[in-house]
Amino acid sequence: MIKYMEIKSSKRSEFIDITGHIQNLIDKEISTGDGICYLYVPHTTAALTINEGADPSVKRDIVTTLTELIPHVANYQHMEGNSDAHIKASLFGSSEVLLIENGRLALGTWQAVYFCEFDGPRERKLAIKIMEG
Amino acid sequence: MIKYMEIKSSKRSEFIDITGHIQNLIDKEISTGDGICYLYVPHTTAALTINEGADPSVKRDIVTTLTELIPHVANYQHMEGNSDAHIKASLFGSSEVLLIENGRLALGTWQAVYFCEFDGPRERKLAIKIMEG
Amino acid sequence: MIKYMEIKSSKRSEFIDITGHIQNLIDKEISTGDGICYLYVPHTTAALTINEGADPSVKRDIVTTLTELIPHVANYQHMEGNSDAHIKASLFGSSEVLLIENGRLALGTWQAVYFCEFDGPRERKLAIKIMEG
Repeated sequence: MIKYMEIKSSKRSEFIDITGHIQNLIDKEISTGDGICYLYVPHTTAALTINEGADPSVKRDIVTTLTELIPHVANYQHMEGNSDAHIKASLFGSSEVLLIENGRLALGTWQAVYFCEFDGPRERKLAIKIMEG
Repeated sequence: MIKYMEIKSSKRSEFIDITGHIQNLIDKEISTGDGICYLYVPHTTAALTINEGADPSVKRDIVTTLTELIPHVANYQHMEGNSDAHIKASLFGSSEVLLIENGRLALGTWQAVYFCEFDGPRERKLAIKIMEG
Repeated sequence: MIKYMEIKSSKRSEFIDITGHIQNLIDKEISTGDGICYLYVPHTTAALTINEGADPSVKRDIVTTLTELIPHVANYQHMEGNSDAHIKASLFGSSEVLLIENGRLALGTWQAVYFCEFDGPRERKLAIKIMEG
């Protein structure tokens, strides 16, 4: 069964750490077993990524560099003023597949799972499906 | 079982909406249940992405911006003249994992699933595997 | 069960072909059946991609072009000097999902699976989970 998590962003571009929320869901659903965790963003100007959770300057560097490569204002045809956010969403991707080992997300020491807002502030949702096995 | 879908592109860079085809396969295979839909592109100059299906100017902006960042002609070593297409394929990715809820692809309101041709026109195929659960 | 593969990179940026290793694991675990192969990189400056395995100039072009777009030295805030590697890791992604058909990775003719080192040389590991079905 898909669970939907509500996410509220507060800036135009923002990486929101959702690792704890996902682990809480796993705790409830499969306890100490192994499994797969599927994440899916049902939006066209947001995405997911996994990157460093320790030093917040890493996510700032990612957001800044992306915006230098794909500026907010340019010669875009789409009239809503958010083509850059659509492009970033495609580059980062709408889904992630995580492994679960002994009831824990099998992340690396420095990894956090981020919901990537590229056209906020908005109210978003994230689809999460956890399967044992 | 993997099903293979034939795709014929007509331009060098082209995003082809395959959402309806995938939904048709799901209708036949799992009817009203839940599941996972795995998509895989067995080519090195094509990819998959999920983005806006309503306004076609979004996909034009994505293709145009990608080509500004990664030009067709540059100082590439690969002699086939399609290094840009290989690079775009790696940035967008060869696979997507979609969720199925009550027999429907769990997409957002504005989302469509695109096969991304970066070195067409060509005849391509897409591997689709649907699993109930 | 997750299997961990050890990978030793020898340069700062390097694409290491891991196709054969993954196929060997599949041979042992599911022999001639169908299934899914989940790959996950538990590092924040490395990633995975699928691209051409035949001509090594393709991977050189990918690495070179990425480094032109996202230089090693720039006005980054993160003090460890590897922000470019974090950004490249997010663009390429930490996971891949591959299909298995009759005991073989369902890759295209020219495809190889690469572990992408962006901040080597280092000792890395890759999580691999193979599920029949």
